[in-house]
Amino acid sequence: MIKRSIITLLTDFGINDEYVGVMKGVILSVNPDATIIDITHQIDPQDLVQAAYLIKASYKYFPKGTVHVVVVDPGVGSNRAIVALKFTEYIFLGPDNGVLTLLTKEKKPDTIIRVDNSSYFLESVSQTFHGRDIFAPVAAHLSRGVAITKLGTPIDQRDLVRLSIKKPFISKTGELIGTIVSVDRFGNLITNISLEDLDKLGSLEQGEKLIIRIGNKQIKSLAKSYQSVKPQTPLAIIGSRGLLEIAVNCGSAKRYFMVKRGDSIKVVLLK
Amino acid sequence: MIKRSIITLLTDFGINDEYVGVMKGVILSVNPDATIIDITHQIDPQDLVQAAYLIKASYKYFPKGTVHVVVVDPGVGSNRAIVALKFTEYIFLGPDNGVLTLLTKEKKPDTIIRVDNSSYFLESVSQTFHGRDIFAPVAAHLSRGVAITKLGTPIDQRDLVRLSIKKPFISKTGELIGTIVSVDRFGNLITNISLEDLDKLGSLEQGEKLIIRIGNKQIKSLAKSYQSVKPQTPLAIIGSRGLLEIAVNCGSAKRYFMVKRGDSIKVVLLK
Amino acid sequence: MIKRSIITLLTDFGINDEYVGVMKGVILSVNPDATIIDITHQIDPQDLVQAAYLIKASYKYFPKGTVHVVVVDPGVGSNRAIVALKFTEYIFLGPDNGVLTLLTKEKKPDTIIRVDNSSYFLESVSQTFHGRDIFAPVAAHLSRGVAITKLGTPIDQRDLVRLSIKKPFISKTGELIGTIVSVDRFGNLITNISLEDLDKLGSLEQGEKLIIRIGNKQIKSLAKSYQSVKPQTPLAIIGSRGLLEIAVNCGSAKRYFMVKRGDSIKVVLLK
Repeated sequence: MIKRSIITLLTDFGINDEYVGVMKGVILSVNPDATIIDITHQIDPQDLVQAAYLIKASYKYFPKGTVHVVVVDPGVGSNRAIVALKFTEYIFLGPDNGVLTLLTKEKKPDTIIRVDNSSYFLESVSQTFHGRDIFAPVAAHLSRGVAITKLGTPIDQRDLVRLSIKKPFISKTGELIGTIVSVDRFGNLITNISLEDLDKLGSLEQGEKLIIRIGNKQIKSLAKSYQSVKPQTPLAIIGSRGLLEIAVNCGSAKRYFMVKRGDSIKVVLLK
Repeated sequence: MIKRSIITLLTDFGINDEYVGVMKGVILSVNPDATIIDITHQIDPQDLVQAAYLIKASYKYFPKGTVHVVVVDPGVGSNRAIVALKFTEYIFLGPDNGVLTLLTKEKKPDTIIRVDNSSYFLESVSQTFHGRDIFAPVAAHLSRGVAITKLGTPIDQRDLVRLSIKKPFISKTGELIGTIVSVDRFGNLITNISLEDLDKLGSLEQGEKLIIRIGNKQIKSLAKSYQSVKPQTPLAIIGSRGLLEIAVNCGSAKRYFMVKRGDSIKVVLLK
Repeated sequence: MIKRSIITLLTDFGINDEYVGVMKGVILSVNPDATIIDITHQIDPQDLVQAAYLIKASYKYFPKGTVHVVVVDPGVGSNRAIVALKFTEYIFLGPDNGVLTLLTKEKKPDTIIRVDNSSYFLESVSQTFHGRDIFAPVAAHLSRGVAITKLGTPIDQRDLVRLSIKKPFISKTGELIGTIVSVDRFGNLITNISLEDLDKLGSLEQGEKLIIRIGNKQIKSLAKSYQSVKPQTPLAIIGSRGLLEIAVNCGSAKRYFMVKRGDSIKVVLLK
């Protein structure tokens, strides 16, 4: 079996223009054996928070050694840095604008490099498309086994730009206040509330009753599956990202609750 | 030449979320040499009929040995089964909800397995994303040559859930009544009427005249190509799926006729 | 390292139907080792000019030997020809409707072939989907090393159908008049004005002032990067295609200027 190296792409480039195809051409020019996988290119233009959540939800399902490239880069062409983060199992490449922030909260990177060695860039670097001119060739070189330390200058984790991301918190009245961070194609509302956050609220195993409030509506328990309630009925469930998710069986929670990304969601325990 | 195994994906996951990318990561973790091809991920959420038609129109254009994975799965997390169907040339994997129904009408599968051997699943199986936790790893194992019989329990074709799909029929007044099953990007209306269905109506070769009625408009012959009529003119043609298709040369039949998927279409032969 | 051959696809097929997936299945049936890259499938239906610009902007970023396939083909099934163009480094395959026109203006092809040798087609050729029945198998054979001359009859460059594409010109009043040829996902307005066109207007290095007029608004200089102006401020820049581009930092020039593809843009030099 031939070892084929994997590169994932997560961008806000969309699929209508030539941008993603051209990045792949550059990657294959450097490493013809790379396997390139799209995570998505439909991040809302310049939406760092959305991209930060998506790469966090995705990276660990790929084989060890995968190079994950995130290009959501409103600062392209300015003096913002490009950084590569090496963890034991994965390498991440992105602009130093906080889009890789959530990853460093989970685990400390082994090495962080400010990527400034232009010998791994395309010969001519534009001011508007570093995805093609820097990210693609650098990722391809990494996927061929070029040591991350060759790409530039080691920096400290404290030097990275951080993204301010809303965390769930417990209000004075004892409610857990979270946020809808994503609405998927099915209209499922994915929140930033994890099982650990729910645990902080109290134990669900002692007869207490969980109430989830969205707008002026509420859901009174955690479901085991989408179909554990009747069709067109709302439910709350721990979704595939390990986060509290609001859904409607065979329907759209987005339409049912008339809410959007960024709206808040409240959880209380009643005795 | 290295034998690379092919897996196709046909889902309703869309391309905005991480779902498809993550499935591919799981597949490559099991089989780094798999070639993964998207048929489409834009099936309307939970539209089994649309998916059933698309896999039927697509599968046979892939190399022998391809594993076709269809994940349109409103019952995810419930007690619906997952099934694998082995034919001489292809293997299909999908939920047992009828989405693979049309395939078994064409040909009898050699083997049908209810997939319940969790040793081929991801270690932790969520209740909301079997695409990632079951379909992807099982498909990858199949593509590596794991025998289908290792995946679970053989079942009979009669045990499969069937999808009720409208067939064209001949009315009392002698009209062939079909349905628009798909409207493509060009606005072409693809019906469920095959050449065989037209043959049942009578012979086109004996001077009879074919009339196709859509709403209160009609088309009076079968065209040989889109351009055999003037621009912006409607035509009927046997399309690339071998089905009767209504088009408008350099235009959109959808807009011209103001119809939609599910609407009916009538064909008569006049002497 | 195994030499894997690359085929790119640029079509107006969209991603909702099975068309693109099926083309890939056919390619892999002929050449299981092909690496297939999507440039885009979102060309507006039958928009030859848009496709012509996109392939021109993309092709050279792919490895030498890549086979580029362009299927925007309103004349499918008519007597329009299919042509293959061989340059030193790349092969292009497309309908003879002008979609490959811009490429022959840059450089003379080594060989041009009218593709009519049906032994490289699928056995049964439909009248509506040559992407599947002709373009895909022919591209796959080319990627396996079949000589282009085997595909059909050599023809002369003068025999190719040409696309009439608007070029920028200098008006009697000394203004350079260009056109917006593309609006990307970020709302950037990409024009057909190159640096060479600007040079014809005069020298920017002798204290003259560049004024760019879009509708009744104007921009007074060329920026070095999107972020060289304040957020929500318009700017002009030489973009990644080497063409004059109008953008709004962290915003959408499309919305700011309320313009669309095809609208004109004027450049003047003031002393």
